[in-house]
Amino acid sequence: MAGLSGSDTRARLLDTTLRLFSERGVEGTSLQMIADELGVTKAAVYYHFKTKDEIIEAVAAPALQELDAVIEQARTKRSRGAQIDHALAGFVEIIVRQRLLVGLWNSDPGMRRVVNRTFQAPQGEDLSTKMSTVFAGPSPSLADAISVHVMLAGLAMAGGAPEYAGIDDETLRRHLLDAGRRLLGRPRRQTFL
Amino acid sequence: MAGLSGSDTRARLLDTTLRLFSERGVEGTSLQMIADELGVTKAAVYYHFKTKDEIIEAVAAPALQELDAVIEQARTKRSRGAQIDHALAGFVEIIVRQRLLVGLWNSDPGMRRVVNRTFQAPQGEDLSTKMSTVFAGPSPSLADAISVHVMLAGLAMAGGAPEYAGIDDETLRRHLLDAGRRLLGRPRRQTFL
Repeated sequence: MAGLSGSDTRARLLDTTLRLFSERGVEGTSLQMIADELGVTKAAVYYHFKTKDEIIEAVAAPALQELDAVIEQARTKRSRGAQIDHALAGFVEIIVRQRLLVGLWNSDPGMRRVVNRTFQAPQGEDLSTKMSTVFAGPSPSLADAISVHVMLAGLAMAGGAPEYAGIDDETLRRHLLDAGRRLLGRPRRQTFL
Repeated sequence: MAGLSGSDTRARLLDTTLRLFSERGVEGTSLQMIADELGVTKAAVYYHFKTKDEIIEAVAAPALQELDAVIEQARTKRSRGAQIDHALAGFVEIIVRQRLLVGLWNSDPGMRRVVNRTFQAPQGEDLSTKMSTVFAGPSPSLADAISVHVMLAGLAMAGGAPEYAGIDDETLRRHLLDAGRRLLGRPRRQTFL
């Protein structure tokens, strides 16, 4: 591959970076390693990303945007139950399909720092507040806030855990959904989305 | 304080270190800072602990030993229900009383690495295996293993979260217990220990 232009190559750049991050940790991955892995010069990678933080942000951005979209969609549902069901199914779906990324968020302080910056953005409604509002309502009791916290953190930690990396998507999705629904006191089974 | 001898001063050393770790992170805390905070020489601290890892281990050890004792006690109970109830109550109690330490485990890679070394000790039955066995039985279904993983990780993440640092022990304990019992499908209320 001669250079790094076009959206396909950007996607390849992000995929390769995420894989290297997972294998070597964010700290242990240099722009040079990413360039070597893609067979391009370091300058070609540098053209897209100037700092490690920029590349971490770019790797995490699609999943965060997807999560934001899921929460926005959930808010359009009429009943509280339908809002919760939609948000939970979407959250679990993202965990299942983005296990490498979620695993990094669980274990890597660099990834955690960058993702939490988006998650707890100071301006307007941050993603973290939007999520708790959808799951626990606009002014939740402490009991509900803690339940939702246990659920969100627990599903992410379990879904991204290395010991479940070999489980197929459908199975992991079903078990995470069941655990989430039990914690939120929702009826056991529900058609997906 | 002239030196650092006796078990009282060791306890003071560990308390001070845990507080500094929480305020500045494990990486950001030096033996010199610990010495300054205690009003002793660096050599006096060095007499007790040669490396950062040794001091992290010492800070985490009492809670891990307590957890191990709780799990051992739980195993002596006759019914599965009683085993689960005892282990859950003890686990929650340790989270509530050791919030600073649990918060560090949640967020600090140095603390995570050292604690996980104990947790997943290669020889004999490690604490992690003992805990899953008490909660999910000796050869758990995947569904049960994942539920227990969600519960353990979720309770630790929520219990050590900075946003709940101001909640009194009794309230936090009740909400974490409720969330744990719901996830494990245990009846709602139970007398503590």
